[in-house]
Amino acid sequence: MKLEIYDSTLREGEQSATVSFSRGDKLKIIKALDNLGVSYVEAGMVTSKEDTEFFKEISALDLKCTRPVAFGATCRPCESAKDSPSVNLLAETKCDTVCIFGKSWDYQVSTVLGTTKKENLRMIADTVSFLKSAGKTVFFDAEHFFDGYSDDAIYAMEVLSTAREAGADRLILCDTNGGMLPDVIGLATAAVCERFGKCIGIHCHNDLGMAEACTVSAVLSGCVQVQGTVSGIGERCGNANMNTLIPILQLKLGFDCIGEKLSSLTSTARYINETANRVFDEREPFVGGYAFTHKAGMHIDGVMKSPRTFEHISPEAVGNLRNIIISSLSGRSAMADKMAGMMPHLDRNSPEVTKALIAVREKEALGYTYEDAEGSLALVIKDSLGLRKNYFDLLHFKVMTDEDAKALDALDAMRSSAMIKVSVNGKEKLSAAEGNGPVNAMDKALRQVLSSFYPVIDKMKLCDYKVRVSSGGATASTVRVVIESTDGLSVWRTVGVSPDIINASWQALRDSVEYMLDNYESK
Amino acid sequence: MKLEIYDSTLREGEQSATVSFSRGDKLKIIKALDNLGVSYVEAGMVTSKEDTEFFKEISALDLKCTRPVAFGATCRPCESAKDSPSVNLLAETKCDTVCIFGKSWDYQVSTVLGTTKKENLRMIADTVSFLKSAGKTVFFDAEHFFDGYSDDAIYAMEVLSTAREAGADRLILCDTNGGMLPDVIGLATAAVCERFGKCIGIHCHNDLGMAEACTVSAVLSGCVQVQGTVSGIGERCGNANMNTLIPILQLKLGFDCIGEKLSSLTSTARYINETANRVFDEREPFVGGYAFTHKAGMHIDGVMKSPRTFEHISPEAVGNLRNIIISSLSGRSAMADKMAGMMPHLDRNSPEVTKALIAVREKEALGYTYEDAEGSLALVIKDSLGLRKNYFDLLHFKVMTDEDAKALDALDAMRSSAMIKVSVNGKEKLSAAEGNGPVNAMDKALRQVLSSFYPVIDKMKLCDYKVRVSSGGATASTVRVVIESTDGLSVWRTVGVSPDIINASWQALRDSVEYMLDNYESK
Repeated sequence: MKLEIYDSTLREGEQSATVSFSRGDKLKIIKALDNLGVSYVEAGMVTSKEDTEFFKEISALDLKCTRPVAFGATCRPCESAKDSPSVNLLAETKCDTVCIFGKSWDYQVSTVLGTTKKENLRMIADTVSFLKSAGKTVFFDAEHFFDGYSDDAIYAMEVLSTAREAGADRLILCDTNGGMLPDVIGLATAAVCERFGKCIGIHCHNDLGMAEACTVSAVLSGCVQVQGTVSGIGERCGNANMNTLIPILQLKLGFDCIGEKLSSLTSTARYINETANRVFDEREPFVGGYAFTHKAGMHIDGVMKSPRTFEHISPEAVGNLRNIIISSLSGRSAMADKMAGMMPHLDRNSPEVTKALIAVREKEALGYTYEDAEGSLALVIKDSLGLRKNYFDLLHFKVMTDEDAKALDALDAMRSSAMIKVSVNGKEKLSAAEGNGPVNAMDKALRQVLSSFYPVIDKMKLCDYKVRVSSGGATASTVRVVIESTDGLSVWRTVGVSPDIINASWQALRDSVEYMLDNYESK
Repeated sequence: MKLEIYDSTLREGEQSATVSFSRGDKLKIIKALDNLGVSYVEAGMVTSKEDTEFFKEISALDLKCTRPVAFGATCRPCESAKDSPSVNLLAETKCDTVCIFGKSWDYQVSTVLGTTKKENLRMIADTVSFLKSAGKTVFFDAEHFFDGYSDDAIYAMEVLSTAREAGADRLILCDTNGGMLPDVIGLATAAVCERFGKCIGIHCHNDLGMAEACTVSAVLSGCVQVQGTVSGIGERCGNANMNTLIPILQLKLGFDCIGEKLSSLTSTARYINETANRVFDEREPFVGGYAFTHKAGMHIDGVMKSPRTFEHISPEAVGNLRNIIISSLSGRSAMADKMAGMMPHLDRNSPEVTKALIAVREKEALGYTYEDAEGSLALVIKDSLGLRKNYFDLLHFKVMTDEDAKALDALDAMRSSAMIKVSVNGKEKLSAAEGNGPVNAMDKALRQVLSSFYPVIDKMKLCDYKVRVSSGGATASTVRVVIESTDGLSVWRTVGVSPDIINASWQALRDSVEYMLDNYESK
């Protein structure tokens, strides 16, 4: 059975505490959702002329699958729909589908609207029929439906039938406060579907961490439309996560949501998070970088024997990849797998694998970890096999922070400086740089001094820098630095460990540069 | 009804791709979970003498509610429990409860163990009865139970009855691959509970984003024990999130998990994430900073009229706070409460509360956060009221790392130096110190230079140092440093924020010293 996927990232998602989209971002996201095969995209609330202009831009996108939806409210108490400026704006918006929300919980009608239950029904009927007569497909969001159904089921149902009789094409049941359990949602939805048939949608929030379970419960009770957002972004704890829901509905329950496009789910999810300038949660089900990442030795061993032992689906089905983490918890098979890229003939019993494992364990005993530092791991493995290249010799190095008291107690006035001298094939070169802090200065100086020998280094950029104290003590204990770098195409991470944060940062920086040069050499 | 809460943060949590705990971290976390009233803490896998040593340290903690649990596997195929080194280690571990896992999916028995179904039963029976005869309470983790139940229910049940007949006190049903839907879990669990009665536990993974929904489904089918981790950290997409489950089970379903301690759930969750040096997910249900944060205008309007309109529970029930993004009303009571120590006559409407709130918000806008930096918070509040004391003026400050290349590429040979000149009541003094890294040198130099003026400072010691990049960018973005200090009696934390790690560390150090001097002055 085909389900309608209704994405609300651009409206509900933007209500998330840390998210805001530019117009350009929004257009990119709509295009990406269209390529993914989503049925509807709620492109935003329409409250001004400017909002309607935006829908003209959308209509120029030439969408293949997706219908953009304009979002708005019913008219107000004691106002007719034809006199309501906001309802008229919706009617004039260049899109064939609109979604309006109205109250379905009697408590909200009296407390928030301050009107009567009867007037609320009048507002809904009037708005829906006005928009229908303007030629729109109309979806009705029954706000707080499940709270309403618990408190006064007869009225909640009356709200739905009012909207339906006025011509609403879909009735969307919303758990606006996100406080309902899946069973409660399932039972109420079944009652609604029995009465109204195949025109019901579901819209859940995540305040119990169950937005997806509630949505699935509603679908199994007869819904035909599923609302949610990419990565579940939304007000408070967020909304139902489409990245999770779509594969569950298709792979586990046999519904058709986006058909074969499922295999581009992971890349689309990443692209949209990137566009939203949001740090991607690697623990996300299905699409996260850790979703098929195995760390415990017994899990790795099992997955090598048969992926089914520790994977509930094949990662390829959603366009994701299996990843095996090398740590002291993992063993020979994992290492052989990791080394397959550089030496494809190896198996778990090869002496090279033993050498590499010993080298990694020795480093781990010093406090290094390679779980999130595949760049440094590759270099350690190469080193253990005598394959590591020497790109430069470090001759001298100096980092300084020297400010007077005024600058030190101010926030932005600080500057550190670094001086680095290297030799490459007998040619010596010295460079110095200032930066916001010693690590930034060091990074600049290193790339500057190497750039004339290896111009490709100009493409490289640091994108993240993390520090952790390993042995849990004071400033004199060991510090672990992880640096994430990019050349604009791929991303790699490297690690450094030392009692000195400058030294640890230096190691990670040096690895980062060497890993990049290795990769460009081999191309 | 009372449910047993079994926390696996230290074992499953550590299987999470980015998490690793020091021994000190683990002891802190166990203590925090004990204070929260958790029934069991899985303190780690026992595979070496070193692991058993750790349990001796735990037994010195003098826990009130929590029983530490040692985790391990059954003996191997063709090995008797009494000859198994790992099972013997478990038996010798200083704790009264052990949890062992065994296979309950026939496919795993043949593929991963490479043995017969019969031998697998023998291994389970032998291991359980050996540990029982060693006087242990024994929990049996039936790994992949739900996959097993789907493939070969008779064998899965046989595994359970074997463990139970051998004396297992609890049978834990594990959805190891995390691929099962709540309904499937509920039905299978009901069948198990009907057969074995009130001795069943549930252990779910989050690969469908439904670990909590699956757990609730199992509890409603008759489980008496719930397993999970703080913030759901664990292998791949994580485990059932205890921060979410406990309030759902207590507030929505009427079970007793941790009784009145529920109101310290938020602070405990934050403390444990902080100890794990993990960025807290503010979108987390119940305990996240955004869980009761309202951004949309209509939501704010509703909540002002009545919190129930957009909040499914009261935030205070879990020790969280409502946060309204525009509001000068929000946080007043909390702030008045915070200030009660220094100015007991204040209430939420006092002008001093307004001043302090504005000062804190201004700092927060710069990237400071005070959740885990009560020392710095107290100083900001005092500053806003003109009550902050000036213990010293900083005249000059210099930090240097200057080594030749050999020392830099070695691990332990590095030394940094710091020089600090201060004036106290017109008397100037200069001091210099070397350290492992610039922050350590700075810390030593500061305490040295102040010690002759304020001898009490000799009692102070840094006990932890954490760094995090705030704005997710490269080395030039903002760095947040948290320092934990102690005088041997109490512990306090302070924060510094700057693009420069030296500057941020300096702020945290300075706050740390001033906070201590304030406290000793007032004694």
